[in-house]
Formats: sequence, C-alpha cells, structure tokens
Amino acid sequence: MDLTLLLDKIILDVEDKGARGTVADYIPALARVDPSHFGMAIAELDGTVHGVGDWQHPFSIQSMSKVFTLALVLAQADGADVWRRVGREPSGDPFNSLVQLEHEDGIPRNPFINAGALVVTDELARYGDAADELLTFLRTESGDPGLTVDAEVAASEAEHADRNRALAYFMAAYGNIRHPVPEVLDQYVRQCSIAMSCGDLARSALFLARHGIRNDGSRFIGQSEAKRINAVMLTCGTYDAAGQFAYRVGLPAKSGVGGGILAIVPGRCAVCVWSPGLDKRGNSVAGATALARFTTMTGWSIF
Amino acid sequence: MDLTLLLDKIILDVEDKGARGTVADYIPALARVDPSHFGMAIAELDGTVHGVGDWQHPFSIQSMSKVFTLALVLAQADGADVWRRVGREPSGDPFNSLVQLEHEDGIPRNPFINAGALVVTDELARYGDAADELLTFLRTESGDPGLTVDAEVAASEAEHADRNRALAYFMAAYGNIRHPVPEVLDQYVRQCSIAMSCGDLARSALFLARHGIRNDGSRFIGQSEAKRINAVMLTCGTYDAAGQFAYRVGLPAKSGVGGGILAIVPGRCAVCVWSPGLDKRGNSVAGATALARFTTMTGWSIF
Amino acid sequence: MDLTLLLDKIILDVEDKGARGTVADYIPALARVDPSHFGMAIAELDGTVHGVGDWQHPFSIQSMSKVFTLALVLAQADGADVWRRVGREPSGDPFNSLVQLEHEDGIPRNPFINAGALVVTDELARYGDAADELLTFLRTESGDPGLTVDAEVAASEAEHADRNRALAYFMAAYGNIRHPVPEVLDQYVRQCSIAMSCGDLARSALFLARHGIRNDGSRFIGQSEAKRINAVMLTCGTYDAAGQFAYRVGLPAKSGVGGGILAIVPGRCAVCVWSPGLDKRGNSVAGATALARFTTMTGWSIF
Amino acid sequence: MDLTLLLDKIILDVEDKGARGTVADYIPALARVDPSHFGMAIAELDGTVHGVGDWQHPFSIQSMSKVFTLALVLAQADGADVWRRVGREPSGDPFNSLVQLEHEDGIPRNPFINAGALVVTDELARYGDAADELLTFLRTESGDPGLTVDAEVAASEAEHADRNRALAYFMAAYGNIRHPVPEVLDQYVRQCSIAMSCGDLARSALFLARHGIRNDGSRFIGQSEAKRINAVMLTCGTYDAAGQFAYRVGLPAKSGVGGGILAIVPGRCAVCVWSPGLDKRGNSVAGATALARFTTMTGWSIF
Repeated sequence: MDLTLLLDKIILDVEDKGARGTVADYIPALARVDPSHFGMAIAELDGTVHGVGDWQHPFSIQSMSKVFTLALVLAQADGADVWRRVGREPSGDPFNSLVQLEHEDGIPRNPFINAGALVVTDELARYGDAADELLTFLRTESGDPGLTVDAEVAASEAEHADRNRALAYFMAAYGNIRHPVPEVLDQYVRQCSIAMSCGDLARSALFLARHGIRNDGSRFIGQSEAKRINAVMLTCGTYDAAGQFAYRVGLPAKSGVGGGILAIVPGRCAVCVWSPGLDKRGNSVAGATALARFTTMTGWSIF
Repeated sequence: MDLTLLLDKIILDVEDKGARGTVADYIPALARVDPSHFGMAIAELDGTVHGVGDWQHPFSIQSMSKVFTLALVLAQADGADVWRRVGREPSGDPFNSLVQLEHEDGIPRNPFINAGALVVTDELARYGDAADELLTFLRTESGDPGLTVDAEVAASEAEHADRNRALAYFMAAYGNIRHPVPEVLDQYVRQCSIAMSCGDLARSALFLARHGIRNDGSRFIGQSEAKRINAVMLTCGTYDAAGQFAYRVGLPAKSGVGGGILAIVPGRCAVCVWSPGLDKRGNSVAGATALARFTTMTGWSIF
Repeated sequence: MDLTLLLDKIILDVEDKGARGTVADYIPALARVDPSHFGMAIAELDGTVHGVGDWQHPFSIQSMSKVFTLALVLAQADGADVWRRVGREPSGDPFNSLVQLEHEDGIPRNPFINAGALVVTDELARYGDAADELLTFLRTESGDPGLTVDAEVAASEAEHADRNRALAYFMAAYGNIRHPVPEVLDQYVRQCSIAMSCGDLARSALFLARHGIRNDGSRFIGQSEAKRINAVMLTCGTYDAAGQFAYRVGLPAKSGVGGGILAIVPGRCAVCVWSPGLDKRGNSVAGATALARFTTMTGWSIF
Repeated sequence: MDLTLLLDKIILDVEDKGARGTVADYIPALARVDPSHFGMAIAELDGTVHGVGDWQHPFSIQSMSKVFTLALVLAQADGADVWRRVGREPSGDPFNSLVQLEHEDGIPRNPFINAGALVVTDELARYGDAADELLTFLRTESGDPGLTVDAEVAASEAEHADRNRALAYFMAAYGNIRHPVPEVLDQYVRQCSIAMSCGDLARSALFLARHGIRNDGSRFIGQSEAKRINAVMLTCGTYDAAGQFAYRVGLPAKSGVGGGILAIVPGRCAVCVWSPGLDKRGNSVAGATALARFTTMTGWSIF
C-alpha cells in the first residue's frame, strides 16, 4: 500500500469536511493555536515515516504523554506493581472526575485519566524526575535531541492546575500519592507540556507496533506488556468516547487536548494525527475523522 | 496450528488451576448446574469445529444472546437506527444498573447491558417475535434444527425478572420501550433461555470472524457492521470487567451468567468456552482462564 | 391574632407578586387546571377554620396524601416496623430518583419520596385497601362524607405511572414490596387522586398540631409519633428543596404536584395553601410565598 | 423546671446505657482523649448556666465552629451574599463528599459540610483572619478571655488535611475559593482546633436562642437570620444523620468530631453536651442520647 498516496487522500477528505471543533481554551498558550492546522504521519516498522500537512510542526503532547510514562513504569523490574494503585477499566465518566475516586478508595479507574496518570507519575518518580525520564526516552526514540518542555505552556498549566491538585491531594489522603503533591504535580505538568511533531510522536510510539522493541532493536517492554498497553489504549485512551472510537476507528489510540491522537496498528505501524479543534469530549475532530478514513481505506482495523 | 492439540493443553491447564467461582444462583434452574463442567470449541472459517470436554453439552446462553439479537437488528435495512436508542460506551457500572439510565434520559450506555438488550429486543420486535427470530437464525447457523428455549429456565427467569421489569418500565417512562413491557420482557426472557452447546455457539458466531458472511456464504451484515459489533464486544462484552478482559485476553468477547463466553478472532475463528462457575462480576472463571491461555499460546490477541 | 385579617393580607401580597410557576403537565387532568387559583385555610386547634380565596375548591391532593398514609401506618400496633423498610433522611436527589434506591439495597430514604410512599402503601395494604383506609380517615376528620377519588385523575395517573411502576418492581426485586405490584400501584394512584379543598385538608391535619389527638378528641397516634412526623415533614416534605423551605418558612410542611402545601404550627394550627403553579422542584410558587408571609407576619416559625 | 435536677437525671440515664461509640482517631491528639468523659451544660436566656459532669472541661470544638463562622459572615452588611456561594440543602452524602461538588459546579450543598465551611471561612477572610475573628467573638460571649487554639491539635489537623486541601483546590478550580488555598486552610484548621468547655459553648450560642441578641444585649444578627441559622442546623447540622436526629431529638443542633453537640431551644436556652465516642456518622453517641432524653423530659422539641 502506498502510504504517501493514502495520506494525500485523507487530507483532502478531511479538508472537505469543514467543521473542526473548538481549540482547548483553559490556558492561553493552547487557546491561541491556529485551528486550521492539520498534520498526519505514519511510521512503519522499519522506521520509515510518511507525513502530510503539518506533520513536522511541534504541538503540545498533553495526555499522549500518558502512554509513554505508563510504558516507562512497566519497563522497570517491578513495574507491574503499578496495577495495585490504578485499575484498567474504562471510567464511564469525564476524564477528570473525582466521583469515581471517592467511590473506589482513591484508586483511579485507569492510567489514562488524569488521576491515574498522576499515580503513574508518582510511581515513575521513584526512579528520577518523571518529565526528565520521559524526555530522555522521547529524544532517543524520535531521534530529535532538541525535544523539550514548552516552558510557557508548563507555566500556564501549573497556574490552572487546581483540579489536578485537588485530585492529587485527594489520592494522597488515601495514601495513593506518595511523593509530595507539589513535586508530583510539577513533573506531571512538565511532561504534558512537551512539544513534539506528528512525525516524532509516530516514531516514538513504534515500540507498541513492534510488541515492545525500540527503534534500536533492543527490547523495551515484554511482548505481553506491549499488547496490554494497546488494550488499555483501546478501552480507555479517548476519555469517555472510547467505545465510540473503537466502533468508528477500531484501533488502540490515545488523544490529548493539544489536538493530537496517537494510534497503533499492531505489527504494522504507528500513526499520529494532529488538528487542534476538539469535540466536547476532548478528542480532535479532524483527527478522529482522519483515523476513521485511514482504517476504512486500509482495512487495518484490529476487528 | 493444531487446534485439537491446543484444546487438549488448555483443558489440562484449566483443570490444574482448581478454583472455579460460584454458579449463578438467582434461579433454581441455573443454581443446580454441576460446576465441574468445562467445554471449549473452536470453529474455523470453513466451518470445521474442534472441541474438548463438554463442548457438545447444551447450557443456557443467557447474555450471549445479546450479540445475535444486535446483529439481527443491524441486518435490517434501517437497523442502524437502533443507535439512536442505545449508546456504545462501556457502562463503568454493574450490568443491571439504573443509575446511568436516570442520568442519561433512559438511553442505555450499550446494547450488552440488560437495559440496552431490552431496547434491542424492543427494536427486533418490530419484525416479529424476537426470540423466534433468534431461534431461526441460530438453528440455521448451527445446523441444529432441534435448538429450543429451555421452558423451565424461561419460566424461572420470568418469575425473577423484577429488576429487568423495573428497567423496562423506567425506559418506557422515557419513551424508549415502545411495545408493551410484558411482551418485550417475555421475548427477552425466552431468548436468554435458549440452550446451546459450545460447538453450536462457535459455529453460529462465525459471521463475526468472517466480517459479516454466514455459514452458507451469503452476506448477513456489512463488513463494517461486523467489525463494529466486535468493537462493542471488546469494550462492553464482559460487564464491568471489559478493560481487564481486554488486557488479559485481548479478544472481542461476550459472556453470559450461564457460564459461557464467546470470543472472536477476526479473520480466523470463533471460540466458545463454558464453565458454570462465575467471578463476582458475572464472568466464567475457568472460561476466562482458558481464553487467556488460548491467546497466549496462539499469539492471536488482536493487539 | 385575627387570622381572617391575616389571610386577607397574605392573598393581597401574593397577588402583588405576579409570577406563579408552571402547572404540572404530565397528565391532562392536572395540566388543564386554571393556574390563577389561589386558596388558603387555617384550622385552629378547636376546629375553627378560616379561609380565603379558593379555600373551598377541591383539587388533587397528590403527595400530601403521604403524610396521612404514614400516620395511618404508625397508628397500627406494630406501625413502627415500617421504619425497617424506609429511612428518615432527606434524599438529596429529585423525588423520584432510583439512584439512591440502588445504592441502598431497595430501602428508600424517606416516606415522602415516591419510592418511600409506595412502601408505606404496601405496609398499609396489610390492613385493607390503602386508598379506602385513607378516604375513611379523611372523610371523618374533614367532616365531609362526600370526599372521593377523582376517577379521571386516577385513570390518567395509572396511564402515566411507568416510572412509579419501575420503582415498585425495583423494590420488589429487593423484597421491599410484598403485595403484587399492580395492586400496590392501584392503591397508590387512587390515594394520590383524592380531591379535597384547603379547608378540608387543614381540618384533617389538625392531629399533627394537637400532638396526635383527632378532631373528636380521641388519640390517633402518640405524642412522640406526631412530633416525629412533623420532623420528617420538615426535613423531607418538600422534595429536594426541604432545606430552602425550612430556611424560608420554618414550618413542617408537605407539598403535592397538584399545587397544595400543608403546613403545621405545632400546638397552634394547621395551614393549607393551594395554587397550581409549581417551581422546578415541584412546589407551589404562590403557596411557598404565602407560607413565608404567614410565618413572617405571625412569628410562628418553629425556629 | 429545675434544670440542675434534670441534668442529674440525664447523666444517670446516659451512664446506664453503657456503649459509647468510638473516639475519632484520624489525628493522635483526638485519638487519645478519654472516651469516658461526659459533660452537659444548659445556658438560660439570662445567661445562667447549669452544668453536670465534665461541663467545664475543654475539648476540641471542631465542626461546631461552623455555626459561629456562618453567623459572623451573616453579621456583615453584605453577609447574605454568601448564599450565592453555598447552598442550604442537606447533602444526603457523607460530610466530606466531593461527588456533590462535582455535580453542582463547585457550590457546596450547605455551610456545615466541610466544603461549605471552607467557603464560609474564605468569605470571612475578607474581613480578617477567620480564626482570630472567631476567637474574639467566643472570648466575649463565653466571658473567658483565655480561650485559645490548641496548637497541637491544629498542627496535627494541618498534617492530616489532604482531603480538605483537595476540596479547597477543587472549589478553587471553579472560582469558589478566592483567597490562596493554604491561607484558607490554615484559618479553617485553627478555628476547628479551638478548645472550649460545654459551659462556654452553651453561653456563646445563646444568641441563637435569643433570635440574634448577644449576651450584652446588643443585636448580633437579625431575628430572621437567627431563625434561619437554626433551620440550617436542623436540616444539615448532624452530617447525613440530620433526618434521624430531627426525628429523635427535634432540636436544631450542630455536632463535631471532638464529641460535642450544640443544640438550641429557640426562645428558651442553648444546650451543649460532650462525650468523645462517635457513631459511624460522626455524631457523639452519648451526646445524642442525652439530648433525646432532654427533649423527652422537657417536651421542648420544636415539633
């Protein structure tokens, strides 16, 4: 299949659709991103990357970081211990809900809602600064040593983090955040504020398409662990629209409020799409459309 | 791969495990089933069926019927209209919850929780008696004209249906059950009370592995529809353990409180396993173990 | 205090206010009531009744019936057993909520939400038809032998009772409705459909102002029981606006969607006000205003 | 009525009862209080105080402080503005619940749950340090200039305040906490940690029995405001047992996890009882029993 040709068709289809949702506006640095951006990149197993549109334009990875921090924890010798502190079930509620936390004794439903990602960060902090660990990994996998935290976004996120701060203190009250909350929050905010392009993200996520093997051929996580991260992405990766996303696109995916969506075709490729306009559930409108086109045209839905 | 040999290994592994959960006891007819039963069948795309243990022993299909009634509705010309009356998201709550219904104006989260299946039955009732429609389909696909409703189970279910009756009247109050509640409930109870064996169930579900093609080669539902049913099975098919099941087994599946679990390997085969002992979430303990062994040994997880 | 003069002032104040809420429209027989009605009656301990406006005009008592059926149950030798089946706490949720029932094993929060009143009716049905028992009591206390169920309202209520039917079947699933649901529902619907005037209602409720003594001087319920019914009225009598009502009016009260509100001044009098326009929580707008004026002018708030 | 004699009878009755609940153990300073303490004081309108048992022994006032800070806010010229930021309805959920806050946009249900009291503290902080304002008021009303914050309790509370910190940050995310969270929390913790005796508390609360008049005869808050605080105490003052408390005792009351309960007999007296053993809802077991005896023996229930 000619993936470059495929991307050319997809961008045309997406541009035909017009309406593109609303750019996240809870912090100024995200609110002023131009909503007309659209980029998409496909990284093949051998590392070849095909791109279209703004595929080399960096944007805020936000919640897509959660896939990588989870993998970094699971890559540790006793990484699976994290599952004692966070579940694997869809939340059935908006992504920053406290309701479920209260009903379930401070154990978040899954690692891709904010509460769960805070626990993962707290766990990763046992081995070093979580944002630094993540940056090191992403620089190596993407091959771009210049990747960095967007300091303005990070500062702005930190200023608007009262809800995440509430989540963290609430879990601390249950003993499920162990480092000091301000430290955990700082590491969390910085990892969300890393700026990357679709191309870099697709390359960095190839280990999930290769069942655990990094770009240099070394094993990062076990085959089963890689498959299981894909499973969690499918059931929990797109907030409370995961069922709808599985129905429509049929691929493990993780979205972020920066407008990015990362999707995995196991054994074939990693895909990243970016368009800043979001639907009311926080997923990129044009990004979801592009991925739906992608699986329809390729037949690569996992179902 | 020698599937007969594989099944022989799986049954030995499962027998080694010992503990097998608790048989459903809300009706006498289910409560007195011997918990030591175990059967498993794999139906290949060409219709060949491999079985082990009690794979030819009929049992109550219960909620596995929901997959087939959903397909029967979607096979209608305007079948997709059902999605206006039922969602596709995991419920995040136990399978017979009214909480969510009340918060979401009588629209059930998905077609595999009881409320959603009642809506599907109500929709199928537009075309005839839902249980009769289902029986006709299952007899044809399984090749067993003797399949029938277990009248004792059906009578017992009807006597213990107050909670489902409450669900139906509650949705009727929102206009989301349209036929008289007693009729819908009768059809629902009878379809759940059909008795079938693992072998018959696996053969009957092959259309999902063949992306919509029935055993006689005719098209039943569209390719996309088949993939989408698989997606809903993966995200919603095992009650509020769907995330855990996807993580551990990695296949679209639907369980029933009779102890059966039906799983699909798209493009390869349909699998049915039966063991009456359930975990606290209503899924067969030995059945889930057997399917986890199955994907580990074959590598056929969709992830 | 000249209560007739007081009533004259209140009706003028209320007429000045203008806006009057929305008439209940879930059944036609209620929807076509003229919203401009306003009546108010005060019954003194000696049985003297003062009235103003439409105080002799009969209307549908609806949920005000719940005070009397609770008292009729508590008047039985083992009446206090009802508290094993229903709580005494405010619900904190809309009056027909199923959420709470599900979280608390089929035990309704209090006897004045619909679920709780269905349990009270089921309990009263041990001694005879609940609606007939209620009618007998109300005819005697009001002195009006012509009081009767409005057959049209009752028929209409029965047709629109799917939500109450759901509540009843749901509690039946927990064993907390013991008579057949259709019978309980029939008795419940008829008791809500009794038509009475403000004057008759105020006279009939005097036993609560007299700490348990009926109009003929005989004891109906114990002094403590009477005080306790008043306490439940204060904390639970006006749906999920009970706190606001206590704050504003400061009297034990029970409202109905027919637009009536019954209030008790312990040791002094019983008051009934009627105006069909409701606020969004189901309480009469002009009725609440009139009662707020009443306590401000008399200083008879219990606080 | 001879109140001294009455108190003598009550303490005997309470001692007869035996079982006394469990001392609050979330902080060491509270956990080591001797559970056998029992004290009770009645302050008459003229300031006369009658006491029995440990009525002069200081203990941690905890949530009883919430009555006084609410009154201090309402005593301000624009005090009623606080009702835009906090409701007046019973919560129907445990006293530190976040669930309700999330469903209702950061507006707590009432000023006596922790979230609501944090809002009241934040409002009072407009006029000065809330704990200092409270101390000044309590010293004057009690006539005890030595009243002070128990520094050890305050330090311990601050160490265990993660849940309250979560509540405060959560409301800050909705704009409903306006001062910096650490400041609000500090003032909140200190006001809860004031140590007082039953006698001092009863004297300090007399303004609620006198409809707004302080011990020096000056007006503190309006008559209506005083009645309304009593109404909020009745519907919301004893956590999620307010309905049960109204039913059993029949007086406006506010309890604290230090084991104190403050109750008001409007127009007659203020009562304070203390015994450290709590029931599972956080109310003093012997305290509630003593107040139930008090209203039974005096007939002074407001109902």
